[in-house]
Amino acid sequence: MTAFPDIAATPAELIDHRAVGRSLEAPFYTSPEFFDLDVAAIFAEHWIFVATEAELPEPGDYVTITLGSYSIVVVRDDDENLRSFHNICRHRGARILEQERGSVGNIVCGYHKWTYGTDGTLLHAPSQPQGFDPGCFGLKPVHVRSVAGLVFVCLAERPPSDFPDVAARIEPYLLPHQLRGAKVAAQIDVVEEGNWKLVMENNRECYHCDGHPELLRSFFPTYGYTEENLPPRLRPAHERYLQVDAELRQTCQRLGLPYELIEELDNRATGFRIQRDALNLAGESFTADGKVACRTLLGDFPTPRLGHLALHLQPNSWFHFVSDHAITFAVLPLAADRTLLRTTWLVHPDAEAGVDYDLDVLLAVWTATNEQDAELVGRAQRGIGSPAYEPGPYAPTEYQVEAFCNWYITRLRAHLTR
Amino acid sequence: MTAFPDIAATPAELIDHRAVGRSLEAPFYTSPEFFDLDVAAIFAEHWIFVATEAELPEPGDYVTITLGSYSIVVVRDDDENLRSFHNICRHRGARILEQERGSVGNIVCGYHKWTYGTDGTLLHAPSQPQGFDPGCFGLKPVHVRSVAGLVFVCLAERPPSDFPDVAARIEPYLLPHQLRGAKVAAQIDVVEEGNWKLVMENNRECYHCDGHPELLRSFFPTYGYTEENLPPRLRPAHERYLQVDAELRQTCQRLGLPYELIEELDNRATGFRIQRDALNLAGESFTADGKVACRTLLGDFPTPRLGHLALHLQPNSWFHFVSDHAITFAVLPLAADRTLLRTTWLVHPDAEAGVDYDLDVLLAVWTATNEQDAELVGRAQRGIGSPAYEPGPYAPTEYQVEAFCNWYITRLRAHLTR
Amino acid sequence: MTAFPDIAATPAELIDHRAVGRSLEAPFYTSPEFFDLDVAAIFAEHWIFVATEAELPEPGDYVTITLGSYSIVVVRDDDENLRSFHNICRHRGARILEQERGSVGNIVCGYHKWTYGTDGTLLHAPSQPQGFDPGCFGLKPVHVRSVAGLVFVCLAERPPSDFPDVAARIEPYLLPHQLRGAKVAAQIDVVEEGNWKLVMENNRECYHCDGHPELLRSFFPTYGYTEENLPPRLRPAHERYLQVDAELRQTCQRLGLPYELIEELDNRATGFRIQRDALNLAGESFTADGKVACRTLLGDFPTPRLGHLALHLQPNSWFHFVSDHAITFAVLPLAADRTLLRTTWLVHPDAEAGVDYDLDVLLAVWTATNEQDAELVGRAQRGIGSPAYEPGPYAPTEYQVEAFCNWYITRLRAHLTR
Repeated sequence: MTAFPDIAATPAELIDHRAVGRSLEAPFYTSPEFFDLDVAAIFAEHWIFVATEAELPEPGDYVTITLGSYSIVVVRDDDENLRSFHNICRHRGARILEQERGSVGNIVCGYHKWTYGTDGTLLHAPSQPQGFDPGCFGLKPVHVRSVAGLVFVCLAERPPSDFPDVAARIEPYLLPHQLRGAKVAAQIDVVEEGNWKLVMENNRECYHCDGHPELLRSFFPTYGYTEENLPPRLRPAHERYLQVDAELRQTCQRLGLPYELIEELDNRATGFRIQRDALNLAGESFTADGKVACRTLLGDFPTPRLGHLALHLQPNSWFHFVSDHAITFAVLPLAADRTLLRTTWLVHPDAEAGVDYDLDVLLAVWTATNEQDAELVGRAQRGIGSPAYEPGPYAPTEYQVEAFCNWYITRLRAHLTR
Repeated sequence: MTAFPDIAATPAELIDHRAVGRSLEAPFYTSPEFFDLDVAAIFAEHWIFVATEAELPEPGDYVTITLGSYSIVVVRDDDENLRSFHNICRHRGARILEQERGSVGNIVCGYHKWTYGTDGTLLHAPSQPQGFDPGCFGLKPVHVRSVAGLVFVCLAERPPSDFPDVAARIEPYLLPHQLRGAKVAAQIDVVEEGNWKLVMENNRECYHCDGHPELLRSFFPTYGYTEENLPPRLRPAHERYLQVDAELRQTCQRLGLPYELIEELDNRATGFRIQRDALNLAGESFTADGKVACRTLLGDFPTPRLGHLALHLQPNSWFHFVSDHAITFAVLPLAADRTLLRTTWLVHPDAEAGVDYDLDVLLAVWTATNEQDAELVGRAQRGIGSPAYEPGPYAPTEYQVEAFCNWYITRLRAHLTR
Repeated sequence: MTAFPDIAATPAELIDHRAVGRSLEAPFYTSPEFFDLDVAAIFAEHWIFVATEAELPEPGDYVTITLGSYSIVVVRDDDENLRSFHNICRHRGARILEQERGSVGNIVCGYHKWTYGTDGTLLHAPSQPQGFDPGCFGLKPVHVRSVAGLVFVCLAERPPSDFPDVAARIEPYLLPHQLRGAKVAAQIDVVEEGNWKLVMENNRECYHCDGHPELLRSFFPTYGYTEENLPPRLRPAHERYLQVDAELRQTCQRLGLPYELIEELDNRATGFRIQRDALNLAGESFTADGKVACRTLLGDFPTPRLGHLALHLQPNSWFHFVSDHAITFAVLPLAADRTLLRTTWLVHPDAEAGVDYDLDVLLAVWTATNEQDAELVGRAQRGIGSPAYEPGPYAPTEYQVEAFCNWYITRLRAHLTR
């Protein structure tokens, strides 16, 4: 009797043999081994969007975030700086903060009352012997950085060096929305039954947007298409888009708002894409009629008709900034086949629910879209789980999905050759 | 310090060392590695009973079936032929049909609207570039074949070559029941908490039939016993059986119905066993008094007193055909320790529930029996999970269990030496 | 491209490199491989406390216990001796007794009615061929031994040889409580979301006892502290403790009750610790005011003020014996991250609920304490699951946790070098 045949190629082989222009092989989406690699190579070595400063207005405010098997805390310290730590007591390893968010004076472990300051220093460990050095047992720090109010962390000792450059290039787009002082109108978590990459890939194309009737009203369905590959059915929408987009560019020039597309998705560690783009119908916001959902605008905008500023960052986030609100999306991996999508809606700090905005109206388009996407992601995960699955071809309009996969494969290679 | 001792033998070693006449070693029933091997070597390389034609009367009617990690669809195409495909879109691998059954015009993937005909050809893929060849992206076909209305699929490229011979030998027994045009009276799924082989083994002996009071009324409790090994307590039942069986043989001869036992359980790829056999009490059907449950008989039978035609097929099915209805049992593996048993009751197409039959009466015996068996299978799985389990001896009346294990081990060996 | 880096050290390496004075590395608590090793090296090779004789007063009374993947039964046989067996039928491996406890005449497998006596002999196996030797198919025995009414089993062929010595040393402490004829007032199972070692470690220190307000009332909070390492906040409690303890010693001397500390936690196979110690408040029992919960005392005690006799046994049990009741705690591993804690309250056989004791009062302190501990254990397990966890230092008052880890590592080494 012969030995068992090799059931599967190794991750290294699968990475080596990845076919450009096609979806990835199944193990990238289904195997726990690849999930662990993704956490180690992608989520532990890149800047990860995890929260907004609006969630942490006061000293002591904190949020906890799960990244694979990591638990981290982001806290505003007593000097109002952002700090981030591993959410683990240095004594016997207990998880310290168990709530998703809250406010603390000090960070106290509930097990044996080891007490840390909001800057992570160990302030008090009861009953320790002489010679015990609290300086050796501060909370383990995690890099944290806010870009115009968006909070990123990096678990690596040495984060990718290109992040300051990316930050500098996107801040001029973001700052006019004044997110730092914004107010959280809502935050909704959806657990999708699929690999985190399927969640990202799904977001990177509008080829499937027929499945999003609400979004299709506010969003031009020509996302990802070029003049060359535009299908005839989208021709009228595209004509209308060109006209509205021209108007939007004039408005932006008048107001000094940058709007040009920058697209560096797969040629750098911190891949990104940013562009101010037109919206459909009234062109103001993500609502059924395209008009603003909140009558108090963000920043000092003199007009609501600013389309949407779309930002995408590898590996785990995208954003839509409109004149009256901003929506952030953080993709947080839970397991090979489960992913948390955290969506946060921000409005002007003075905006009041029921007065300036109707919360249901504000949330309607993207909660519906998220639910539809979750169904599609689950469908993709279930199909890819079959041994009969083989990678299929991306259409031209899916070039950003391809760019995501390029970026991902490149980063895995960088990780494995270090 | 020495290295860890080998905790377990390899599958190849366990297969090599299998003790004839005893139950299998624990890993065959408990290890995920063996489960994967079973799916690859047994379920992906043999003809698997999955449905009845009665479930697919019209063009476009389909059922989806899960076999381990495979999802397949069986559909009646526009030419009324049966087709089977892997239930995976050739674009990015999404599962296409999510329902257990339904009816379609074309087979449309809900993700990006790739559209396939019921014959599997890719009819439409939006927004593809020039040079895209739809002929390369039809649904992946799966072999499908109906035997007298029973639908079998085979995932292998080259299915076992003996299936036509088996089909030819069992069709004369089955055809008089006219199952092709029958009506589905009910279909019930039970998830059993045990390995699929325990479900099969449990069905292959009546040594445990004291646990089936309902079945024992209609079924002679002498199943599997020979004159030599018949226990004294079953002697009266056996005497009565011999008399009723003699009458049944006369009836069959008069009506031209084959009734001889053919038993080729472990000497061929498509192991099987078929026999028309007497039933207890009124001898007509599986009911509390042995009388028919449905007053409209299947086929053109002039008498209800035809005993039961029992068919067993390796690896995953058994059947009982009585004059007034037919019951099919498909064993579909879900995980090493979970198995779906799908039971389908078929009646004459003109039979009406509440008029010709009482559905509760029709279902009573085998739903009770299935529930009792599920409990026993769970008990076996739980016991075998202990490191202290060791294979025990089969009694002579369990020779069909032994034959199943022989067949299974032979087929694993054939798979591993290819 | 290089090969994957080693993600984890092997168990043997982790055992070799264990840092004395610190908590264990994460895989000891989280990996299924270590869980299997723990079951094989610890639970299958040591004496494990599983029940009390009080649960098995009559012949035929039995309890079933799950130890990792083992299921065993402890039964009182027809001669009133304790017996223990693997709970597996010798025919095809079915689990025989499915209930947690009950009473039987014979032990009958529900599958094919193989029938065993309470001494494990196979009495009847239906339909076996000539030459079948029932003597080869008795239930597989497990070593069982009662120490003053506490029931221990050992799965190993050759149990640790020091158990009789330990039994002889602790029996003088236990016998005056007369547990053999006691009555079970209550038994409560709690499933904790943590490794079994975290459950044991948590019990081995009172450094965290601020989290136990109920227990702190009856229990001196100085457990584990010495004069040298006593924190100032505990000084008043300690002064009071010394006074009460001196009184207790006098009482014990008068009544001939042993009270000296014996502490051999990590220098033998059957590590243990025993001591009679003072209780707070009224000093009689675990209640809000320290008075007895049951007015009928255990044994023949002339006074209720006997403090508590505390017994701890490696690897899985601890006990508190007070004048009016006894509480036993058995830690039974379910999975790497799940553990069953079974707590049993025993009272005098004549004590009646509602007359001699109020059940809620009897259970109050330790049910609250168990729940609090379960929360802490889950917190520890969750924290240790992060890749950023590293072992931290034990405080002097945690010396018994360190002793437990020493014992554990020593026993793993003994297992792996055999």
